[in-house]
Amino acid sequence: MSDLSHPTLELARDLIARPSVTPHDAGCQQLMADRLKPLGFDIETMVFEDTTNMWARRNHSGPVFCFAGHTDVVPPGPESDWHTPPFEPTDKDGILYGRGAADMKGSLAAMVVATERFVAKHPEHAGSIAFLITSDEEGPFINGTVRVVETLEARNEKIKWCVVGEPSSTHYCGDVIKYGRRGSLTGFLTVHGIQGHVAYPHLASNPVHAAAPALAALAGEVWDEGNDAFPPTSFQIVDVHAGTGASNVVPGKLNVTFNLRFSTESTADSLKARIYKILDQHGLTYELNWILNGLPFLTDKGTLIDAATAAVADVIGKTPELSTAGGTSDGRFIAPTGAQVLELGPVNATIHKVNEQVSHDDLIKLTDMYERILERVLVSDNMG
Amino acid sequence: MSDLSHPTLELARDLIARPSVTPHDAGCQQLMADRLKPLGFDIETMVFEDTTNMWARRNHSGPVFCFAGHTDVVPPGPESDWHTPPFEPTDKDGILYGRGAADMKGSLAAMVVATERFVAKHPEHAGSIAFLITSDEEGPFINGTVRVVETLEARNEKIKWCVVGEPSSTHYCGDVIKYGRRGSLTGFLTVHGIQGHVAYPHLASNPVHAAAPALAALAGEVWDEGNDAFPPTSFQIVDVHAGTGASNVVPGKLNVTFNLRFSTESTADSLKARIYKILDQHGLTYELNWILNGLPFLTDKGTLIDAATAAVADVIGKTPELSTAGGTSDGRFIAPTGAQVLELGPVNATIHKVNEQVSHDDLIKLTDMYERILERVLVSDNMG
Repeated sequence: MSDLSHPTLELARDLIARPSVTPHDAGCQQLMADRLKPLGFDIETMVFEDTTNMWARRNHSGPVFCFAGHTDVVPPGPESDWHTPPFEPTDKDGILYGRGAADMKGSLAAMVVATERFVAKHPEHAGSIAFLITSDEEGPFINGTVRVVETLEARNEKIKWCVVGEPSSTHYCGDVIKYGRRGSLTGFLTVHGIQGHVAYPHLASNPVHAAAPALAALAGEVWDEGNDAFPPTSFQIVDVHAGTGASNVVPGKLNVTFNLRFSTESTADSLKARIYKILDQHGLTYELNWILNGLPFLTDKGTLIDAATAAVADVIGKTPELSTAGGTSDGRFIAPTGAQVLELGPVNATIHKVNEQVSHDDLIKLTDMYERILERVLVSDNMG
Repeated sequence: MSDLSHPTLELARDLIARPSVTPHDAGCQQLMADRLKPLGFDIETMVFEDTTNMWARRNHSGPVFCFAGHTDVVPPGPESDWHTPPFEPTDKDGILYGRGAADMKGSLAAMVVATERFVAKHPEHAGSIAFLITSDEEGPFINGTVRVVETLEARNEKIKWCVVGEPSSTHYCGDVIKYGRRGSLTGFLTVHGIQGHVAYPHLASNPVHAAAPALAALAGEVWDEGNDAFPPTSFQIVDVHAGTGASNVVPGKLNVTFNLRFSTESTADSLKARIYKILDQHGLTYELNWILNGLPFLTDKGTLIDAATAAVADVIGKTPELSTAGGTSDGRFIAPTGAQVLELGPVNATIHKVNEQVSHDDLIKLTDMYERILERVLVSDNMG
């Protein structure tokens, strides 16, 4: 049914064949640059520590439409768990298999092919087209998009519209567009007690006993009710550890890691203050360190969302759902610069799993959607 | 001040020089047997798996007075942490240093020397004298005293009075006699949830959140008030573990280990029932496995306690405190046979630590105390 020689599939296979496990790019960006350069893109490679990033831009005037994504993939795990080798792209029954097929080398291929087609049809399009590609999206996200955005900000180079190729879809390509993401805040809590022998409990102070009511209170807290765009803020304890391994020793400390996914109804500071208050109410002796993994963002309805919604409807005849659910993405680093950001990509059912896959049809349709978005943003009256 | 050539010190040194880390006996029991045999003891070596035990008995009629103890010691740890090599007995300023000096090779030496003196003075004493010695007191206590007691029970051989040489003393030898011990019950709890991504909490079920109120309830429970002989039953969580190590994964299960030290006001079954009830009240999905480390025991006042109390007063002019505090000992396996059991031994301040030590004076006095106990039990009108 599908066209095995479709250029998006060809490029996706070439990208999958490169074993670019985080933070390695393994030549993927060069492959993309080789296609973009003939279209008139200026290629800028930005290497920060172990991470390779590419900033490619066509035209240097007018507002910037940017495709954003990553060439790195998560480790495949034991190859024997896969039906086919993870870095040997394999087509079977209309499906392309391989690590990164859905997250997100398929999207990268669709972006490049859509841009080739668009530039061929509209060589004198308005504005600029850019690619912001990193090899550190699945890793510690320190030397990837964050650093590229800092570099662009420093020279006052602005992105106005940004489409991230993250696999946003649930059942078929285009059923869901992510137009925002919750914030993510992680806390590392150490509750101190006094270690001792269980036979002499009066000489010890058990930090697990002290912390249990506080953890129950945190788990039961309603942080906010969410809003039209966001579900309520959620709190999850992801790790607890105490004990020496001996059954006759009262542990001296308890380590707890928790994570909040928060809506725009809360802020990192408001959440921290409430957590300190709950811990203090329970009289704990503790240390608490934080990592703010990302602020929440929400793209207002307007040019980009309208264009993407219409583009999806153009291609598949259905209107996508706008959602802020799910994990974080590099969109959280681009949105704070003032850009309109959304995520549109293939079905995410198999990402980070063995036998990662994407359907040929979805990649071909995604190429069409990206091309239609470019047309709706850069060829209409949307320029402003 | 002390007599460096006192036979108890000599034998204690010979025992310490044998590196009998659990479950190894390293020839210690043979050393004791070589001293007991000439006194008319029949020596029975009982080897169970990796453990060597000795049952030595003088006379085969009349009630049995038994010295009980262990030749094994806990590992010394890095020798460089010690001032003197742990298995080279060293005397300095009236102190004998070495692994096992206090726990409990000093006591074993005192028992042997006291028995030598007593038998020399009272060759026709009433009743029997026995030694129940194991090399597995510090280990899993599976093939030691438990198996010897089973063997004795099977042939209807009863112990009437038993003095265990555990280091019962706090400040000076004889200040505390242990005349009972709390029971010890360990629970291994697994609370089941549903693992998932923190970004999709509605698809996961966090076992830490579910368990926290139950753990708080367990930690706050008053199990009993204790009684004249025992402090209240205490509950301690000794280990909690949950989490994959990733801060974006809701853990699928929580493992909790807890230990109860319980008085004779509670039973293992009554405690288990109350814990099941609390867990069920909180609606947890869980598994719970138990190890009953030991039942509580209490020796009624009578012949043995009277003899030991008087013997201590004879030697040091002070009346010992009777206590049930502290950890378990092999006495818990002997008491259920109906024996009167108590523990009398040197100061326990340095046991299981580096530079383990016992004072010469204490060992010499302990020898006198043991001899006086033999006299008060086996030479008076106490036989009955």
